[in-house]
Amino acid sequence: MSLAICVLSGGIDSTVLLYDLLDQGHRAKAISFDYGQRHKKELLFAARTCSRLEVEHEIVDISSIGRLLTGSALTDKRIAIPTGDYREETMKLTVVPNRNMIFLSVAGGYAVAQEADLLAIAVHSGDHALYPDCRPDFIKYLEKTLRVGNYHQLAVHAPFLDKTKAEIVRLGRRLGVDFENDTWSCYAGDDRPCGECPTCVEREEALGP
Amino acid sequence: MSLAICVLSGGIDSTVLLYDLLDQGHRAKAISFDYGQRHKKELLFAARTCSRLEVEHEIVDISSIGRLLTGSALTDKRIAIPTGDYREETMKLTVVPNRNMIFLSVAGGYAVAQEADLLAIAVHSGDHALYPDCRPDFIKYLEKTLRVGNYHQLAVHAPFLDKTKAEIVRLGRRLGVDFENDTWSCYAGDDRPCGECPTCVEREEALGP
Repeated sequence: MSLAICVLSGGIDSTVLLYDLLDQGHRAKAISFDYGQRHKKELLFAARTCSRLEVEHEIVDISSIGRLLTGSALTDKRIAIPTGDYREETMKLTVVPNRNMIFLSVAGGYAVAQEADLLAIAVHSGDHALYPDCRPDFIKYLEKTLRVGNYHQLAVHAPFLDKTKAEIVRLGRRLGVDFENDTWSCYAGDDRPCGECPTCVEREEALGP
Repeated sequence: MSLAICVLSGGIDSTVLLYDLLDQGHRAKAISFDYGQRHKKELLFAARTCSRLEVEHEIVDISSIGRLLTGSALTDKRIAIPTGDYREETMKLTVVPNRNMIFLSVAGGYAVAQEADLLAIAVHSGDHALYPDCRPDFIKYLEKTLRVGNYHQLAVHAPFLDKTKAEIVRLGRRLGVDFENDTWSCYAGDDRPCGECPTCVEREEALGP
């Protein structure tokens, strides 16, 4: 049985990905990152999903890098979280410099050490316009870099690359994901979702009010 | 004046690289990593060089990833540091899974946030045989991944890619590097260099006894 290392944020997409990996017959381990994000709370939801699915879960503290990744509202507390939907220009403030490359490099090192077959990430088509590190070209070159940089050979598995958020939610419902209780999206990371930040807006569009 | 972010270990090669960047008229900032290596002591030497050169220095604590990067004598205390020179097969035990990709991804995020022009790393030709993440193809695809993954465009600067250790030492001597007092190589990281691990052997070959 093949082993997949799944990058899990605790949000909708990566939670569905973890369910999907198990449904497809893979063995899976999950890895989550504390990178100094305001909505660190998402990690509790990632842990809840792993506990429910009995999946081994590593939460890696790289929070000391947060201070270096300035210019993003997600890691730099001097910048307010923008409100509205992802189509607005101010949403670039939610881009964290090189975030997915950092996550996939650390997760890739773990996957190599574990001699895993797949490194799985839940980037999807709705991310492409705003986030360069969610686009097909990024995934292609990242895989290539991992392959030339290590003896052990991995494939990067990004099965949602061409899917919409709505399709991911449909798949998750079919697989029994409890979105309401087991996933977190809001960037503000307060007690309750703010309802105004782009990921709250996107979540409501995808899940319904 | 262009800004370079230099990955600095505190060893011979990256110390010379930092001197060389300044000599070539770049502005430079340095970044070093505590990744759970036994020879964490090297970071003190990196700090000493930065202080001497009045270069801003970030030491990033990602030591929590050390436990994930198993199978290497540098991060896994159950494995003894091999002795001898780099030509022996046991030297593969000094390979840390995906290390340079992890360093360059974090340093790349920092470089993007700083809007730097160059991301500098001191890989050299003597590293190629053993370490896949020091080879020309790795540097090429890593740069490509950084470029497609970010809005801000960086170049990866690896001027020692085709140089030997002896050439790097000659350059360092010309630039006034005090190798004996300001650099550290030994993987064991005890009070004095062990004289037996591959990097001690290589250092003695390059600097003389």
